[in-house]
Amino acid sequence: MSYEDRLKQLGFKLPPAPKPVATYVPAVRAGELLFLSGVLPMQNGQLAFTGKLGRELTVEQGMEAARIAILNALAIAKQELGTLDRIARVVKVVGHVASAEGFTDQPQVLNGASDLLVEIFGEAGRHARVAIGAAELPRRAAVEIEVILAIA
Amino acid sequence: MSYEDRLKQLGFKLPPAPKPVATYVPAVRAGELLFLSGVLPMQNGQLAFTGKLGRELTVEQGMEAARIAILNALAIAKQELGTLDRIARVVKVVGHVASAEGFTDQPQVLNGASDLLVEIFGEAGRHARVAIGAAELPRRAAVEIEVILAIA
Amino acid sequence: MSYEDRLKQLGFKLPPAPKPVATYVPAVRAGELLFLSGVLPMQNGQLAFTGKLGRELTVEQGMEAARIAILNALAIAKQELGTLDRIARVVKVVGHVASAEGFTDQPQVLNGASDLLVEIFGEAGRHARVAIGAAELPRRAAVEIEVILAIA
Repeated sequence: MSYEDRLKQLGFKLPPAPKPVATYVPAVRAGELLFLSGVLPMQNGQLAFTGKLGRELTVEQGMEAARIAILNALAIAKQELGTLDRIARVVKVVGHVASAEGFTDQPQVLNGASDLLVEIFGEAGRHARVAIGAAELPRRAAVEIEVILAIA
Repeated sequence: MSYEDRLKQLGFKLPPAPKPVATYVPAVRAGELLFLSGVLPMQNGQLAFTGKLGRELTVEQGMEAARIAILNALAIAKQELGTLDRIARVVKVVGHVASAEGFTDQPQVLNGASDLLVEIFGEAGRHARVAIGAAELPRRAAVEIEVILAIA
Repeated sequence: MSYEDRLKQLGFKLPPAPKPVATYVPAVRAGELLFLSGVLPMQNGQLAFTGKLGRELTVEQGMEAARIAILNALAIAKQELGTLDRIARVVKVVGHVASAEGFTDQPQVLNGASDLLVEIFGEAGRHARVAIGAAELPRRAAVEIEVILAIA
């Protein structure tokens, strides 16, 4: 089954790829690697989750935010590559989680992203991961995720 | 016009490349990629902007800090490559912006860096970008920027 | 002398490679690069240092935490490659240091990691480095370190 079919079967639909509002671009390819710009949990043109984990948001909400952010990353990948099926491997995911003082469950939050990647891509979805607690994120986003992909 | 001429025409001059004060190095090449160490807004041997956005510094000051930090990155690139003209693409920029509680305009601050890259390198200057709000940065720097370049 | 012998000679022993507790993996190879997951200062199955620099921890403790975290990174590398001797270059180290308000000595803390890399790998251990002050880190870890290696 193609990755796109798998995504549909899981009940997910890609959002429109986020458009940079400045002079950067959604992704840059260098050799076999595709470096994506940081993605936020955008849904229907708005941030689905704002605020900090450990204060305004629960871990469950953070996981959902991470899931939505990853769908935005995949939307960028599809826009760049034509199809998700050209993704050979999800290489690395760096997740920045907006964290109030004392919140240390960043890994749990990012499982929302990691689990979805493995559900869609199987073994090719297993990535190196870094989970960080950010002081602040753009536009009060709950999470921001950096992705590096390897392209077939 | 060469990138170096373009830089001059824009009225910018590269600072001396920052010297690491420890056992790391300014940049490491791996294949076609050049990974740079994080750069701070150094000017005439000192930090041009210290403190946090949203507290001691305005967005305009942050943009200027980002611009100066990027000139330091280009100084490293020139030192490594001999000339900026060997830069094939600015692949990725990760900008860490020292952010007081509630400051969420990191993207605006980093436009100081992104816009300058596009002014100098044109399409080759368009990069994937990540904007993060840092709790603290070395030596109270206002911004710290990570750059990955592709080399011709 | 092999890197492994050098490590022994320096009196260090690799811990067991940290096992991801979720759907990500310790490392992913893409071409000549090996991207590692973020490593924490794990020792004997526990975090050796928790809390923030500038509050619960001294710079010396932070340096020791960075050193231990790097040993965890090398344990991953050995697990992936069979031997440290296949490491051609330490390309990049991003160090996230849990920082209380006003702590700005992240570079000093990370010298614990950088110096050890150079002691073990010599010139091949000299890396590009980024030092960041994190608001919070997973499980209250004192530091988290990202490593990119080039493989022979």
